[in-house]
Amino acid sequence: MRVWSDLNELGLNAGKKARLHRILYQFGLRNGTALFLPYDQGLEHGPRDFFANPAAGDPAYIAKLAVDGGFNGIALQIGLAEKFYWGFAGEVPLILKLNGKTDVPSDRDALSPVHATVADAVRLGADAVGYTLYVGTPAAESDFAQFRQVRDEARRLGMPLIVWAYPRGSAIEGKGGKDSFYAVDYAARTASELGADAVKVNFPHPEKRAGVPAAYDADFSAQQAIDAVVRSANRTLLLVSGGAQTDDAAMLDKAQRSMEAGATGLIFGRNVWQREHGESLAFIARLQEILAKYPRGREPRQEPDAG
Amino acid sequence: MRVWSDLNELGLNAGKKARLHRILYQFGLRNGTALFLPYDQGLEHGPRDFFANPAAGDPAYIAKLAVDGGFNGIALQIGLAEKFYWGFAGEVPLILKLNGKTDVPSDRDALSPVHATVADAVRLGADAVGYTLYVGTPAAESDFAQFRQVRDEARRLGMPLIVWAYPRGSAIEGKGGKDSFYAVDYAARTASELGADAVKVNFPHPEKRAGVPAAYDADFSAQQAIDAVVRSANRTLLLVSGGAQTDDAAMLDKAQRSMEAGATGLIFGRNVWQREHGESLAFIARLQEILAKYPRGREPRQEPDAG
Amino acid sequence: MRVWSDLNELGLNAGKKARLHRILYQFGLRNGTALFLPYDQGLEHGPRDFFANPAAGDPAYIAKLAVDGGFNGIALQIGLAEKFYWGFAGEVPLILKLNGKTDVPSDRDALSPVHATVADAVRLGADAVGYTLYVGTPAAESDFAQFRQVRDEARRLGMPLIVWAYPRGSAIEGKGGKDSFYAVDYAARTASELGADAVKVNFPHPEKRAGVPAAYDADFSAQQAIDAVVRSANRTLLLVSGGAQTDDAAMLDKAQRSMEAGATGLIFGRNVWQREHGESLAFIARLQEILAKYPRGREPRQEPDAG
Amino acid sequence: MRVWSDLNELGLNAGKKARLHRILYQFGLRNGTALFLPYDQGLEHGPRDFFANPAAGDPAYIAKLAVDGGFNGIALQIGLAEKFYWGFAGEVPLILKLNGKTDVPSDRDALSPVHATVADAVRLGADAVGYTLYVGTPAAESDFAQFRQVRDEARRLGMPLIVWAYPRGSAIEGKGGKDSFYAVDYAARTASELGADAVKVNFPHPEKRAGVPAAYDADFSAQQAIDAVVRSANRTLLLVSGGAQTDDAAMLDKAQRSMEAGATGLIFGRNVWQREHGESLAFIARLQEILAKYPRGREPRQEPDAG
Amino acid sequence: MRVWSDLNELGLNAGKKARLHRILYQFGLRNGTALFLPYDQGLEHGPRDFFANPAAGDPAYIAKLAVDGGFNGIALQIGLAEKFYWGFAGEVPLILKLNGKTDVPSDRDALSPVHATVADAVRLGADAVGYTLYVGTPAAESDFAQFRQVRDEARRLGMPLIVWAYPRGSAIEGKGGKDSFYAVDYAARTASELGADAVKVNFPHPEKRAGVPAAYDADFSAQQAIDAVVRSANRTLLLVSGGAQTDDAAMLDKAQRSMEAGATGLIFGRNVWQREHGESLAFIARLQEILAKYPRGREPRQEPDAG
Repeated sequence: MRVWSDLNELGLNAGKKARLHRILYQFGLRNGTALFLPYDQGLEHGPRDFFANPAAGDPAYIAKLAVDGGFNGIALQIGLAEKFYWGFAGEVPLILKLNGKTDVPSDRDALSPVHATVADAVRLGADAVGYTLYVGTPAAESDFAQFRQVRDEARRLGMPLIVWAYPRGSAIEGKGGKDSFYAVDYAARTASELGADAVKVNFPHPEKRAGVPAAYDADFSAQQAIDAVVRSANRTLLLVSGGAQTDDAAMLDKAQRSMEAGATGLIFGRNVWQREHGESLAFIARLQEILAKYPRGREPRQEPDAG
Repeated sequence: MRVWSDLNELGLNAGKKARLHRILYQFGLRNGTALFLPYDQGLEHGPRDFFANPAAGDPAYIAKLAVDGGFNGIALQIGLAEKFYWGFAGEVPLILKLNGKTDVPSDRDALSPVHATVADAVRLGADAVGYTLYVGTPAAESDFAQFRQVRDEARRLGMPLIVWAYPRGSAIEGKGGKDSFYAVDYAARTASELGADAVKVNFPHPEKRAGVPAAYDADFSAQQAIDAVVRSANRTLLLVSGGAQTDDAAMLDKAQRSMEAGATGLIFGRNVWQREHGESLAFIARLQEILAKYPRGREPRQEPDAG
Repeated sequence: MRVWSDLNELGLNAGKKARLHRILYQFGLRNGTALFLPYDQGLEHGPRDFFANPAAGDPAYIAKLAVDGGFNGIALQIGLAEKFYWGFAGEVPLILKLNGKTDVPSDRDALSPVHATVADAVRLGADAVGYTLYVGTPAAESDFAQFRQVRDEARRLGMPLIVWAYPRGSAIEGKGGKDSFYAVDYAARTASELGADAVKVNFPHPEKRAGVPAAYDADFSAQQAIDAVVRSANRTLLLVSGGAQTDDAAMLDKAQRSMEAGATGLIFGRNVWQREHGESLAFIARLQEILAKYPRGREPRQEPDAG
Repeated sequence: MRVWSDLNELGLNAGKKARLHRILYQFGLRNGTALFLPYDQGLEHGPRDFFANPAAGDPAYIAKLAVDGGFNGIALQIGLAEKFYWGFAGEVPLILKLNGKTDVPSDRDALSPVHATVADAVRLGADAVGYTLYVGTPAAESDFAQFRQVRDEARRLGMPLIVWAYPRGSAIEGKGGKDSFYAVDYAARTASELGADAVKVNFPHPEKRAGVPAAYDADFSAQQAIDAVVRSANRTLLLVSGGAQTDDAAMLDKAQRSMEAGATGLIFGRNVWQREHGESLAFIARLQEILAKYPRGREPRQEPDAG
Repeated sequence: MRVWSDLNELGLNAGKKARLHRILYQFGLRNGTALFLPYDQGLEHGPRDFFANPAAGDPAYIAKLAVDGGFNGIALQIGLAEKFYWGFAGEVPLILKLNGKTDVPSDRDALSPVHATVADAVRLGADAVGYTLYVGTPAAESDFAQFRQVRDEARRLGMPLIVWAYPRGSAIEGKGGKDSFYAVDYAARTASELGADAVKVNFPHPEKRAGVPAAYDADFSAQQAIDAVVRSANRTLLLVSGGAQTDDAAMLDKAQRSMEAGATGLIFGRNVWQREHGESLAFIARLQEILAKYPRGREPRQEPDAG
């Protein structure tokens, strides 16, 4: 299967295409790849994520980092978007996260309640919306019901929909866990089947095989796994998540393999800002070196007849 | 991170700014700080809270205390607002509490049901609305759904939204309890991420460390804790709650530390009115002495060209 | 705290005031007190309540009793109001009960579903509506949602709202039970906090102290208890319920203590009509003797200037 | 007939009272009188009104004048309110004008189309709304239909409604003209009959008698005329308009007579800002000297019982 | 009066600011000025406008010209936007025109009926909407009613609103005509008073003085006139229209004077595309030379504290 080579292949309406074009060709490297800065950890994990670099607890610091670092977008919950984005409006695309939760209760029946609408995103000048879908959760009935409304509103308003596709719920641990190749591959496909325009997944771990279905219980390389995940996402653009901070070499290796596999881009938060400002910029530069090697085709325009 | 220094930084629309300006600069010390009188205990705890000073069971007594004591606002549920505020309308700002509950059932699945609307607040001449969010409750789906509507209506009507951010639910006790530094810090951040204009929290207890995440399992002073909580709230104005009545020296110490940390003000109920009237006024005066030391900057006005 | 002395103090709009004025000054003793006849037991308990006096199962018999006995109002569910009130319309005020339930299921998650609207009450010529609120029930989310709509519609249509405030739900039995001073006091206050114009409570039992909060775990006389309940209701007019039939001396003692405490009136059903017709009228006369001793002040009208 | 002496006499709901209290007792002289600055001439007459003092064409200049001059309010159309009031929000009350028109077409069928809502006023933090009613216009059907909606929304949102009551239309010229005692008196009464909370009228000219009804075709002094107009407005607060700029002595005489008659205040635009800034402030001071002589009674608060 | 120097002064919400930032700083010269290509003449005048250069009848030809010429936006009616913009989505900002009319009937009661919504604009990925307001028309009641809805929806969705402010209607010809300084000045002010974010006007003709109000019946230079019009628009960004094709020197002179006066930009259609393709690009280049001399200030960003 070919990787998408221009936005006209994706069945998008004009608004979704205009906004994705803006994100992919008017920001960052302007080459059809994307580097996003997610900043929803204050809700999802609490302020403890900022202890490593207290400056990162300030949304204005992060927004400025997104502008200065040449990101293709910054993902915020609505409260921070309302209070901080006006100061950066138009300087970096906003991805408004529409649902979220704290990590105080357990994840057995994980559900990320909706707390904002696509119309809020439009009002705030966002270029995309984000939705966390807990693939495999027992609370799928509520999750799908929420998602259906979000997807429908996103379509009506021409807003690209990025799904944070996370395997969760009481059953997943017995089937290889939430980061297994099986789980990530299934999550990417689920987002595609349900109508995401882009999907954010963790990098798959093919070595996590305890309890996975037979097809995944074999020796796969990391590259084979991420190749498969990109194929599973098909015309849903794939974004690979950085997750918790780890060593740089490993992160860069994941980034390289993801882009090689055909991913559209990377969405790295803690690995970027859980370090001092200069180091953040240096790390961003290394990610962009990788993205620069994988330009995604710009659509040729249909030429009107000159006369 | 800087503490907010003028209302123009907060991303507020004109109505929210006009009403906050009124609260912060036209009442109380008129210096940008706030002292609020919460009076929702009749519903939240029942009349037992008035046994220490039976006069305090009369809403008219409390409303007059709010006027005479120079408070920046009084927080009431809708029933008392309907029956009593007309007699004081415009003399002290009204904060209409939009949800509430009795304490008869347990708090395992805590949810504070909505019983009034922002439009009610507008009709009653209120200058802000209050919403109790139970951070960490298993009932977050209902809580977020309610909150989303309140926040949206508050924005549309230009009404400042003050969130009573209280850690609650079956999981919190195993993670340091509802007053731990961890829980209070998380609650302040959650209110900010979800879109509160101001947040009311209890003073954090860094010594409550049993079961808290590793980042919080260290020696923090009370000052370090409240400093962090103010930063977590970022552009959401922080109000520190008095809670149950305790000895005055301890309360004044909390008040002093909170203002030093950058809080906007205090919201003290039982510590104020669970005593005789003259003593209430004396205690209020001591709180105001503290507030007077921490004026919050008044926004410079853009000067029009005179010619 | 003063007891209300005129309707102008209560923050009522013109419609609510006109209808309350009619109830309090144009029916019954016309002295500002009220004696109401509740007749919702056929739904709440079933026809078993009529076995003591089968004639009382006939709504026409009861309506005529309300007229003949000089009641200030009769409370009916919508079905009986539709079928019987036209025959007495205007002869005695109608209180339309807007919710109700059978007593077949347990009261652990008590909720009284709404089955009629304030607009129905207007159409039927009612002068007030009644709503049963189960204070302390785990079903408070639904209860508050229903109540909010009823209260809002009542305000818009100028219809007085009488709340049947009943402590209920799985937690209340462990805290002194539904008739304890604690529970009744909390119920009266809750109705007031949520916006009732009048509240119907059972007479409080201060001797029921098992499990009540510390403040209530002391020696209170019956008079002290009912005094406190009237204060808790503040500007919400207090009506004391008769409850199940008991001996007349005890009932009259409760009535006397309630009026002495500042209640506006009594709402007695089974004690009135679970006896032969002549006895009913005799008992009513004794209640009215008590009410006659406690006239409630008529508002002085603002005098226009004659010139 | 008495002139109103406190806001509790006016039949206002809590929101209207809170906002009027704010306007009358927390701004300007804080004595129950009002001096308003109308600034809708840019739409009503066009920029030609600013030729006398070009600085006055800048809404920021005018808003600052309103703050510096200690006005009780500034009246703006929505466009200027949106773009300028945020910079002064809360520093001077905003009266949002809800309708308006250009003076390009003739006034024969005068109608001032609605271009904003009371909800807009709430959102912008306004303390009152203004509506121009063309008393006597052939287009009354549209005018009344618009007004009915505005009045209803103003009541529901607790927003004071100020009516610009202007006699207009093809018939008025034959009946003494738009400034005759007859026309102004009729306009004041019409606003009162239709539900205005305050009414803005031009000063009546009893000498304009050509074609007026017999009752007005007699010798009335200016004082007699304005006395009658205040009585016609009854509990609708009367504001006297300055109109086109004229000589100061005449204006001050009108102001003095209006306040003596019982008017609540003055609403002077061109006479204030069609002159150099220092002269504007000097003229404002002379108007305030007059207002200071006529304090309007502050409502006595009902005293709660301290014990 | 100062000309606006940064978008933060304009009272815009985040969405409006983000989209204007995009138009002004991410397209064209990226210096805060704007050159727009209006292409609504096919509806407003009919295909006769394309006879001079038949290629210009093809919307794809025009859209490509907008991209190739580096315009800041192209204004289209909804039909052409639906059929052609997807091919250029994101490459040049779209201004969706929401109303329009043919020029078949006379302009005596001019009204431009709405045929699309702001939600359509959002769905199509537009960055602004356009509305034609006929200042002075006898049909102002319908015009204002339409405009109120458009303005409200534009605000709610964060969409900049550009008003085509055109003096029209039976009265205007007797007052100097639609291009007089008086008429254009009034039109600019009206758009500002009613809430436009930007206003498109024709260049004013101060020499057209027959019937204008006295203030305009004097000798004004072209520069004085356009200076006044910019002031009248105040914080509403002024765009000067090219109108019918005329000689290039005159057009460039108007463009130069407009930018000197403080206009934000130019909106030139027929003068651009009623000529051969190469000549169009050459003329565009000369307009951009003028715009390059008048950069509009970029807002300084509030610096977060790095520590």
